[in-house]
Amino acid sequence: MSPAKVTNRVVIDHAAEPLTTGPSRYNKGDPARFEADWLPKIKAYNDAITAAIPKEYLAPAELLPEGDLDTADFDATTVPEKVMDAEDFAITELTATEIAKKIKDKDLTAVKVITAFIKRATIAHQLTNCAMEILFDYGLARAQELDEYYEKTGKTIGPLHGVPLSLKEHYNFAGRVTHGSFVGLLDNVTPEFSVTNQIMYDLGCPQCLMHLDSFNNITGRGRNARKLKMSPGGSPSGEGSLIAMKGSPLGIGSDIGGSIRSPAAFNGIWGLKPSSKRLSMAKSVVPTIDTYDELINGVYGPMSNSPEDLELFMKAYFTQEPWMKDQQCVPIPWREVPQPKAEELTIGICYDDGVVKPHPPVLRGLKHVEQKLRAAGVNVVTWEPHRVYEAAEIANVAYTCDGNYASVERLAASGEPTAPLTDHYLSMGKGDKALTGVETQFYANSREILRQEYLELFNSRGVDFIIAPTYVGVAPKPHEVKYWGYTSLWNILDYTCVTFPTGIKADKKLDPEDKEYTPRNEYEDYEYGLYDADAADGLPIGLTLAGRRYTEEAVLKASKVVADALAA
Amino acid sequence: MSPAKVTNRVVIDHAAEPLTTGPSRYNKGDPARFEADWLPKIKAYNDAITAAIPKEYLAPAELLPEGDLDTADFDATTVPEKVMDAEDFAITELTATEIAKKIKDKDLTAVKVITAFIKRATIAHQLTNCAMEILFDYGLARAQELDEYYEKTGKTIGPLHGVPLSLKEHYNFAGRVTHGSFVGLLDNVTPEFSVTNQIMYDLGCPQCLMHLDSFNNITGRGRNARKLKMSPGGSPSGEGSLIAMKGSPLGIGSDIGGSIRSPAAFNGIWGLKPSSKRLSMAKSVVPTIDTYDELINGVYGPMSNSPEDLELFMKAYFTQEPWMKDQQCVPIPWREVPQPKAEELTIGICYDDGVVKPHPPVLRGLKHVEQKLRAAGVNVVTWEPHRVYEAAEIANVAYTCDGNYASVERLAASGEPTAPLTDHYLSMGKGDKALTGVETQFYANSREILRQEYLELFNSRGVDFIIAPTYVGVAPKPHEVKYWGYTSLWNILDYTCVTFPTGIKADKKLDPEDKEYTPRNEYEDYEYGLYDADAADGLPIGLTLAGRRYTEEAVLKASKVVADALAA
Repeated sequence: MSPAKVTNRVVIDHAAEPLTTGPSRYNKGDPARFEADWLPKIKAYNDAITAAIPKEYLAPAELLPEGDLDTADFDATTVPEKVMDAEDFAITELTATEIAKKIKDKDLTAVKVITAFIKRATIAHQLTNCAMEILFDYGLARAQELDEYYEKTGKTIGPLHGVPLSLKEHYNFAGRVTHGSFVGLLDNVTPEFSVTNQIMYDLGCPQCLMHLDSFNNITGRGRNARKLKMSPGGSPSGEGSLIAMKGSPLGIGSDIGGSIRSPAAFNGIWGLKPSSKRLSMAKSVVPTIDTYDELINGVYGPMSNSPEDLELFMKAYFTQEPWMKDQQCVPIPWREVPQPKAEELTIGICYDDGVVKPHPPVLRGLKHVEQKLRAAGVNVVTWEPHRVYEAAEIANVAYTCDGNYASVERLAASGEPTAPLTDHYLSMGKGDKALTGVETQFYANSREILRQEYLELFNSRGVDFIIAPTYVGVAPKPHEVKYWGYTSLWNILDYTCVTFPTGIKADKKLDPEDKEYTPRNEYEDYEYGLYDADAADGLPIGLTLAGRRYTEEAVLKASKVVADALAA
Repeated sequence: MSPAKVTNRVVIDHAAEPLTTGPSRYNKGDPARFEADWLPKIKAYNDAITAAIPKEYLAPAELLPEGDLDTADFDATTVPEKVMDAEDFAITELTATEIAKKIKDKDLTAVKVITAFIKRATIAHQLTNCAMEILFDYGLARAQELDEYYEKTGKTIGPLHGVPLSLKEHYNFAGRVTHGSFVGLLDNVTPEFSVTNQIMYDLGCPQCLMHLDSFNNITGRGRNARKLKMSPGGSPSGEGSLIAMKGSPLGIGSDIGGSIRSPAAFNGIWGLKPSSKRLSMAKSVVPTIDTYDELINGVYGPMSNSPEDLELFMKAYFTQEPWMKDQQCVPIPWREVPQPKAEELTIGICYDDGVVKPHPPVLRGLKHVEQKLRAAGVNVVTWEPHRVYEAAEIANVAYTCDGNYASVERLAASGEPTAPLTDHYLSMGKGDKALTGVETQFYANSREILRQEYLELFNSRGVDFIIAPTYVGVAPKPHEVKYWGYTSLWNILDYTCVTFPTGIKADKKLDPEDKEYTPRNEYEDYEYGLYDADAADGLPIGLTLAGRRYTEEAVLKASKVVADALAA
């Protein structure tokens, strides 16, 4: 007698699996229902945005590019200075760190600050369509309260007293609609703040300026602040554009595959993707329904115009002990680490992940950074990529491992049509084909093995941090990006990343297209082929500094070494 | 046109699901193959154990109980004093903390210490059958090296220099067989140490005295040190018996449903079940095959005769930064917390989990502890149980969520017969029916909700710690225990637990059977019905102190308050 066969053993060669499958069969849309039931709600929603815009702060027509903003070859960051008075403009040029100090020192009031940012944010939205919801009234009222509190008590309410903050739309906002870009959730008024929103409120942020997101069927396409016709990245693309426009000094995004880092890189700003479970994601709209996907974890993180502001945010956040509010948060407080000297660091530079070669501007950016780091005294080595395709395959399977049911249910609620990149998202990994439980465990195990291999590589190569592309290129045209391997690698590893501007820009003369290059695979054929030297010209080159899991303190300190080296 | 139906949505009412299903259909056994191929290997394995026993240290026949040890109503802990010389006996009465200090102070040598423990461990094994592997030669050789190192350098090799350590068999031991109690792995010679074994080696433990486990087809049944005929708990039951016999001052167990806590409680010793991912489980034999079950995490933790020794172990362990060796470990170092005074603590006592009422001795133990704590000044409240059945259901489903395939494959390798409690294990949750991926995510989400509810209950009730039964009763008869809810609750919540002896024992006069009680459900009917006042008489009553996730430092300090209160 031999034992009954147990058939659910899984053996998958991740290197031989495709990164995507066919389009979702489940996701059909329902144009008639969408138009009849939901377009009126969308119109009402957009009318409310329009009504909330202070018309007197808008940039005059003569400062706008001619024709359709969506196709304009126009750097919107040049506009605010021409519209705003010098004092307000100067306030909005301050970093969050400087604002917090000036309010504490009574050089500025919270109302003065938020008013200046409301003016600049108005222009930012006018040009980039970054906002999903305008919360100026809310922010102004809270700023008044904060000023009164300070006046009365002589104390600031918290370390971010009076610092305006912008928020990705997905975080529950008490008494407002939180829809997470799903049309079908346009009636979802959330009764309480997300844990993170509450923490920011308690820290003194007169949140929030705006709610932000990327292309969606509610507010349409956001535009890149540096060149309107190009993509601002996503998903909190509005966050990238708004902060690049200095319409907000500090914002929060979320990231499960690059959603903090790509808008940061594409708009030329700074962004921190922490390791999972440091910042609370509790009480947010995410595309799950009564489920919790443990294969890959999304994270929240700050976006700003300087590494100091990212640090300010994190340091302040942990004074609130998030693990006492949200059980998912690991109880790791903010751990001060000494600022390393350049010569104490070994940084590996990744010029190619072995799957898709970076576009010419990004390669030049990497070389530029290498040169600057060497000049500053950093020990720079070349980082040989390790199983990045497998990491991308695991990540892509993780995104859709529920067989798309939650996303499709959310979309089906309104029958809304899907954007091209949503279609792509639904086709990632195994698409509509949900993993079995044992397959889920198999993928989890493969991810754990990969994490151990990277830990051992960091140990054996003696590398402290890696600098790598954030994306294959600079900001792409809308709806184009399909390969996320440069960012999703760090999600699968759960490493900490700081995306930073190199200070240099794509240049069609220095970065000609390479027509001779022979792609190594279908993904490279597509993604490397997206490079268009004319379209890229002038766009910022943003790279990413990555460090081990749960090393936010150290990565931020190292990012200052990088910033200093680049500024030298 | 309406969207295609996505059928994989999951709605399960955990409170209405059974805790077990029918027996495994897959697990058949193959007696002929087992006898022909594997019994000879088992015999060789046991012969090696017998050969490794130093006959000169055995207790003489006249000190042993008459008849079969397995049915003896005999307290084995009384024997060593009658066999050993006074000096060796005195050494083995020391705690690990005292041993480490005496070796450091050169009052004792490592060889002297391990020799004394080898003598006592020999008697322990003779009576309780606690060992799966005898590693006396290895430990003695290492102790000699340690003494020479200290002599030569004037330095101890680490904070546990010379402290003998016993280990659960599942952790890879370089150059030895690691089988994890599966007969089919009797040829599995592991080339390297598990991460935790290596850490203990580096800390100076002349590991290891013995390898330990519970009932299995290799070495048979282990016996309870306090009453041989009773169960020592499991799975590292040998660890509980060995430490209760003071054949080892310190051991490591693992726990995914009570496997550190039940042997500790049943044998009257101390055990710490940390939250997951503090101690490394890397490179161990666990019943998975290329899979990683994230629904419930096993943990490693120390067992000893005092809370100080548990703390000594933990403090020493973290000097080795396990997160730099094993990526699964969270980078939380050992965080010193002040020793609270009794009057600073609020402790909730759980007298009933709402599923199975504790047996009379355990209820009396809880009352005793309440009285002692009150007398010491602790603020004691009654803890109302919260959804313990649902937690047990989630845990039970988690154990077998791969549809038993890995366990069954491991068992099928040898065709070994399964023990009654292995059959029970395979029938837990949904048994052979593996979860789908979406079901896995649904269960994970339910677990997260439960964890958040408990966090909020701890906050709103103002409770610092809970004292609860470790099991429904004191040590049961072998092969009886089926309800793990009192321990698996803390696994599902991932809370930190210290199991401690109350200092009092079951007493058939004080704890008569309650024949009038009407069970509330089938599980209680069975488990409450197991109480046998005669069998329980004289067995130690061990309870468990539980605290929030990742609060090992605080729970250990609080456990000292409990120990002091009980000793007063």
